[in-house]
Amino acid sequence: MPTNRIEAFSDGVIAVIITIMVLELKVPRDTTLTSLLSILPQFLAYLLSFVVVAIMWVNHHHLLHAARRADARLLWTNNNLLFWMSMVPFVTAYMGNNYRDARAVALYGAVLFCCGMAFSFLRAAIASHHRDNAEMVDYHRRTQSKNIFSIALYAASVPLAFWNVWISFCIFGFVALSYFLPERKLAEPGSHN
Amino acid sequence: MPTNRIEAFSDGVIAVIITIMVLELKVPRDTTLTSLLSILPQFLAYLLSFVVVAIMWVNHHHLLHAARRADARLLWTNNNLLFWMSMVPFVTAYMGNNYRDARAVALYGAVLFCCGMAFSFLRAAIASHHRDNAEMVDYHRRTQSKNIFSIALYAASVPLAFWNVWISFCIFGFVALSYFLPERKLAEPGSHN
Amino acid sequence: MPTNRIEAFSDGVIAVIITIMVLELKVPRDTTLTSLLSILPQFLAYLLSFVVVAIMWVNHHHLLHAARRADARLLWTNNNLLFWMSMVPFVTAYMGNNYRDARAVALYGAVLFCCGMAFSFLRAAIASHHRDNAEMVDYHRRTQSKNIFSIALYAASVPLAFWNVWISFCIFGFVALSYFLPERKLAEPGSHN
Amino acid sequence: MPTNRIEAFSDGVIAVIITIMVLELKVPRDTTLTSLLSILPQFLAYLLSFVVVAIMWVNHHHLLHAARRADARLLWTNNNLLFWMSMVPFVTAYMGNNYRDARAVALYGAVLFCCGMAFSFLRAAIASHHRDNAEMVDYHRRTQSKNIFSIALYAASVPLAFWNVWISFCIFGFVALSYFLPERKLAEPGSHN
Repeated sequence: MPTNRIEAFSDGVIAVIITIMVLELKVPRDTTLTSLLSILPQFLAYLLSFVVVAIMWVNHHHLLHAARRADARLLWTNNNLLFWMSMVPFVTAYMGNNYRDARAVALYGAVLFCCGMAFSFLRAAIASHHRDNAEMVDYHRRTQSKNIFSIALYAASVPLAFWNVWISFCIFGFVALSYFLPERKLAEPGSHN
Repeated sequence: MPTNRIEAFSDGVIAVIITIMVLELKVPRDTTLTSLLSILPQFLAYLLSFVVVAIMWVNHHHLLHAARRADARLLWTNNNLLFWMSMVPFVTAYMGNNYRDARAVALYGAVLFCCGMAFSFLRAAIASHHRDNAEMVDYHRRTQSKNIFSIALYAASVPLAFWNVWISFCIFGFVALSYFLPERKLAEPGSHN
Repeated sequence: MPTNRIEAFSDGVIAVIITIMVLELKVPRDTTLTSLLSILPQFLAYLLSFVVVAIMWVNHHHLLHAARRADARLLWTNNNLLFWMSMVPFVTAYMGNNYRDARAVALYGAVLFCCGMAFSFLRAAIASHHRDNAEMVDYHRRTQSKNIFSIALYAASVPLAFWNVWISFCIFGFVALSYFLPERKLAEPGSHN
Repeated sequence: MPTNRIEAFSDGVIAVIITIMVLELKVPRDTTLTSLLSILPQFLAYLLSFVVVAIMWVNHHHLLHAARRADARLLWTNNNLLFWMSMVPFVTAYMGNNYRDARAVALYGAVLFCCGMAFSFLRAAIASHHRDNAEMVDYHRRTQSKNIFSIALYAASVPLAFWNVWISFCIFGFVALSYFLPERKLAEPGSHN
């Protein structure tokens, strides 16, 4: 069981990432409805990032389940992914505070793009573990195409934010939704083994 | 052992949630007894939330023990629960700073209500794993009724806070106590297997 | 293996406790030697608390190793211990900022006293798991007497801080040292099984 | 499996260390490119520390894999290492804020030097577990020499920072790079067992 500690470490890092984001929800000084509503953008940014990071965790869960050994390539593609995921709390707070600003939204999209790329590197590292397994190769090709799809959309969200930030928000929501639904299918008994 | 990593991730998230709440206990500038006593409401809010989150962890421990497989429904009802639990540090700080304010207390009750609902969704997801097991169905029915009881009380605490916040505090304390005592019985050897 | 998740959750909470203490080491604005030296008390308070919490973790490690089952008493004596340990970052920051103040030092001693009491409750809960095992009863009696010794010293540190805070500091250091050395013996192969 | 909990605890602490560093990346108030670029030094310091801590985690992973039992020496050389690693977020923030200041850079180098020393103590503790295994003795001698090499460079980085901070930065980068590459070889199947 050589990949156990990678899972444990990744779980720890992702658990901290997903939880410290809530620290950026600054408690309002007074209790007027206005001041409570003023943190609604931060709350929605937190909600979006929670879903995005939770999806990443679920995908990570499925991916590492398929890893055969903890070699250097797996360790470092995984650390690379964790690095980009660790930037999510920062860009979430930045976008939550400036949700109408193209730069803040574009930066959020850019970090999710980097996470997507990091996922595809990790996926390739794990795929190399069973090149001789036709079923796994096929499974990886299918999930890889979904990965490329979301990378392309995140890449598009960066320039589009400068046109209209709401297009980027729609992209973030759409990618989250598209990942959520198929994951249901992937988790069906028998579909990934 | 497919549910192991869900437990590990949930443990990580809950451990961070329960611990970062203490960061909201701001260290007083000076050391007069007055300034130390001024953070007593925050301390009591922390104590309440610690107990509430600890109860949730214990219930989560019992629930996931009964899960058979990590399917998509289990993963996402669990992530939904973790999301609402992650709001507890925020509403704890908010209520600790404004413990006489109906809005702050109602918001605390509302988040606990959402946690209770999330628990019942998770419970239903796990119950679906052994529909063919009469003993487990009976066990789930009993714990579900306790769950509904606390959801109803938390729901009541939201409007009642606008009448008198102390009624809501009594509800929070009573639900915590009521969960604590029966849990003793549930954990008895033989009662949940 | 029913106590596994208690260990995992406790490890998570203690890991967060021991690490967030370093967040209280505020980075000085400028880089003069004076401003760097001004955080020396906070650094020493952090060092002391790191050692104290690390000792608690080691003892917890040994204690839970002897637990037979995760019953309600074990769960809640453990949660009680984690609650008091979670107060350590707060009192460390408070004492680090006010190391000459009797109240701050007494509060630190009081929290360590509560941790010591919580340990003895946890120890009693675990001892009740093997009342029929003469060797374990003897082992628990010996470690219990060490526990009572440190509880008594921590209790003394509270009033003594109002006489002279340095006496309390000596007590904190002495208890840490006294735990550290015997633990060496306890960990010898064959001495606890 | 007596070293399991040490790994779990260390993973928890390192996961928190590596993630809370990102909290020091303060979100800029406004969204001008200037204010975003003003945190570039902090970002680069975070990137460096992330890589350094990730390398430490990988080495720790390999080292503890070779540990035979959780004796007191292993526990406390490990806790010593975690203490020095827990100082990394502090010196990262300090250096990120004052990257042109010799004192800040020297302090960063000094903490990495202490981490390197702590690693060599942990390595010696684990080496003592299999003094009778010629292959392991040889393995430890080789990795120990790499360890001494980096300790010497970190030691040099402290005085050299007062001459020119960029020399120290080059040392930090070079040590990271030198560890990264050979680790590849160490992780090859068959090379460490």
